[in-house]
Amino acid sequence: MENLDSALQYAAENHQNFINSLNELLAIPSISADSNGKSAMEKAARWIEKSFQNNKFDVVNIYQTAGNPVVYGEKKTSKKNAQTILIYGHYDVQPVEPLGEWESEPFTGVIRGDYLFARGASDMKGQFIASLKAIESILSTGELPVNVKFILEGEEEIGSPNLENFLRQHTDLLKCDVVVNPDTGMLAPDVPTITYGLRGLAYFELRVYGPSNDLHSGVFGGVVHNPGQALCELIARMHSPDGKVTLPGFYDDVRPLSASERAELNRLPVTDQDYLNQTGVPELWGEDGYTPTERLGARPTLEVNGLYSGYIEVGAKTVLPSYAMAKISMRLVPDQDPQKIYDSLNVYLKQHAPTTIRWELINMSGAPASITNRNLPAVQALSRALESVWGKTPVFRRDGGSVPVVGHMQEILGVDSILTGFSMPDDHIHAPNERLHLPTWKKGIQALIRFLYNLAE
Amino acid sequence: MENLDSALQYAAENHQNFINSLNELLAIPSISADSNGKSAMEKAARWIEKSFQNNKFDVVNIYQTAGNPVVYGEKKTSKKNAQTILIYGHYDVQPVEPLGEWESEPFTGVIRGDYLFARGASDMKGQFIASLKAIESILSTGELPVNVKFILEGEEEIGSPNLENFLRQHTDLLKCDVVVNPDTGMLAPDVPTITYGLRGLAYFELRVYGPSNDLHSGVFGGVVHNPGQALCELIARMHSPDGKVTLPGFYDDVRPLSASERAELNRLPVTDQDYLNQTGVPELWGEDGYTPTERLGARPTLEVNGLYSGYIEVGAKTVLPSYAMAKISMRLVPDQDPQKIYDSLNVYLKQHAPTTIRWELINMSGAPASITNRNLPAVQALSRALESVWGKTPVFRRDGGSVPVVGHMQEILGVDSILTGFSMPDDHIHAPNERLHLPTWKKGIQALIRFLYNLAE
Repeated sequence: MENLDSALQYAAENHQNFINSLNELLAIPSISADSNGKSAMEKAARWIEKSFQNNKFDVVNIYQTAGNPVVYGEKKTSKKNAQTILIYGHYDVQPVEPLGEWESEPFTGVIRGDYLFARGASDMKGQFIASLKAIESILSTGELPVNVKFILEGEEEIGSPNLENFLRQHTDLLKCDVVVNPDTGMLAPDVPTITYGLRGLAYFELRVYGPSNDLHSGVFGGVVHNPGQALCELIARMHSPDGKVTLPGFYDDVRPLSASERAELNRLPVTDQDYLNQTGVPELWGEDGYTPTERLGARPTLEVNGLYSGYIEVGAKTVLPSYAMAKISMRLVPDQDPQKIYDSLNVYLKQHAPTTIRWELINMSGAPASITNRNLPAVQALSRALESVWGKTPVFRRDGGSVPVVGHMQEILGVDSILTGFSMPDDHIHAPNERLHLPTWKKGIQALIRFLYNLAE
Repeated sequence: MENLDSALQYAAENHQNFINSLNELLAIPSISADSNGKSAMEKAARWIEKSFQNNKFDVVNIYQTAGNPVVYGEKKTSKKNAQTILIYGHYDVQPVEPLGEWESEPFTGVIRGDYLFARGASDMKGQFIASLKAIESILSTGELPVNVKFILEGEEEIGSPNLENFLRQHTDLLKCDVVVNPDTGMLAPDVPTITYGLRGLAYFELRVYGPSNDLHSGVFGGVVHNPGQALCELIARMHSPDGKVTLPGFYDDVRPLSASERAELNRLPVTDQDYLNQTGVPELWGEDGYTPTERLGARPTLEVNGLYSGYIEVGAKTVLPSYAMAKISMRLVPDQDPQKIYDSLNVYLKQHAPTTIRWELINMSGAPASITNRNLPAVQALSRALESVWGKTPVFRRDGGSVPVVGHMQEILGVDSILTGFSMPDDHIHAPNERLHLPTWKKGIQALIRFLYNLAE
């Protein structure tokens, strides 16, 4: 207990230093979707390598991949029969467009009130730094209670195209008892949360081609099918009026929710009004027959992530566009298979696309959903740690987001992931003015220190 | 006849000089939709002013407006009881996006084969230069058979927001017997064409607002109505499966086509295969019950001119967008009223927009359709001129495009417009690789010279 208390005290005393470290990492614009951003990716990887070296890790390595590098770090304990945990993270971030909507520079950490604003502050450089600083707090005041391995990828925000291969090539290196994945969050600052389910993802680009050139809408309007209109027609029919996805067979493999799980999910302290406040929409929307919490965590959805055709600048251009494009993705639940979802969308398009246009479907990335066993000892260790810091029992939830690596780790390394993290639903992740709630982050570091000690009990 | 022949010979001998002049004007990037392009607009206006001065016009003036300047020029004949014609033109051009699809620089005239490529070559700097050079050919070899006035605006491609006011303020200056408007074209190089009908235009921007920020599609997908999807749903329902526009009352004021007019329109030498060749679409599309030629010239249409939402760059971003936008325009026929069409779209949106999103409709520009009396002496003078040059009787057609000024001239100045011009349907106007068919343009200048002499007969 003495060592635990020293570590907690170290963390409390070094809070400002921890923020400074986070700000250094936030200043690196590591946008994986930006094909011109290779040097920033490299810089972020080097920054993490150095942070491991500063903590005197036993093994530190940057592995090149077909895409962005993977950073690996390992610190052993001398304690006998100690467990090994593998902490997963990603150092890449989402693009920052639309830039004009940011209230401060996206790559400069700025504190306003209780929040630190920057791209990546919440998703997930802040979460990685929390783990790193929990380890640092323990190492600065004693010895690690468990062996710790870190794996940081640089392509999570673009669907982790090279991670699966990396995992397969390094199964020995990554051998562990459990994975800790701090890429999910809490429902609110006073609701400690453990996530036991994640949705999968299937992401597509649908291209509709009309005339071979952009045409004058007066000269040709009335004889060719406008590809923008045709795309809208295809997208509009992807949902029925009751909010269900109409792709053939879309729900075939969806694992039904048991009455007990529905009851538990609906005990989560989130109301319709909370969702209205968090999103600012005039009215909620979704699949008939399910509550918002069920729809978010345990039901599959289909979203338009991007839409483009013709002239979109200021002013009027009377163009009949040659081309229209949509980025469309589905959040999947157990046991939907991303490949079957691709087939389903393909069949839908073959059935519904008119012969007046040409189309092309690009399969960009896919990952299955995952569910973690809530009775794992490590889950219980985390639960007790959160309870110690917050003074209340954590809630268990299924998250609507996707962390493809969780499924891959389960399949390739044979280990479950413990999903935690200290982000909030209104952190504006993937959006302008992303932010991190600093009081929660501070508590989170304390909780991670306690969790590591709990693991050794 | 001697003067006519000299003028024709002058034009033949100076063909390369005429192209050089056109290239000078094409080099000025006068994109009226570009709010940063004011200096290019000014430069184009000055170039035209100078070209009038070089021809020793009696009156040359640049009039400032609330938007881009209007250039006016006037050259009187000493012949008694001579008619006065007013030649209308516009010196502004469409934007050049997508720039990557141009095979040569858009603002450098480049000849490949029979074509001169550049933005504005066909629409309509080339048409203006043809008129100017016809006048120059006559003035260099004799005297004008009629009084000539020129009015050139710089805002046609953005809906001529300031021209109506200008016409009202300068009715004396612009007094004339007939307007010549060379902003339409021919069906093919061997089909001399006179256009007697034009469609009107109503142009809108529809904005759909969902959440107050872009959201993570995993964290919120399933509880809010995606504005991209909602926009697609609204657009998809604007057409019925038989290709009709569903806006309430949209067809109420449409003047029905008489059996004789339908018969004549369908005698035009244009086949479905021609439209397929010109557009490159796999199959034609449009309103049931009408031929392509009828649909283009004499039936109203609704087009998506632009579509935007969320993330449209390369790669995948799992954003649930806060906003979606469409540019939507309708081509109108006699006697549809643009204001009533706006009301109709507004009612449609009130009826169909779901309460899960917010929306806004911006009325960007509108102009009624027009029809010119085919028995006007000036129409007959043009018909004879075209027949002299091409050796065949011209066809009379209704054009699908819109030239709002024609309606305004009719209303404010009380004069009809003669619609001509030497562009082709496949000139890629409003699109990359806009081009001008030079052999036709050369013949066109000859025809305009003959037309001016015919007017005096």
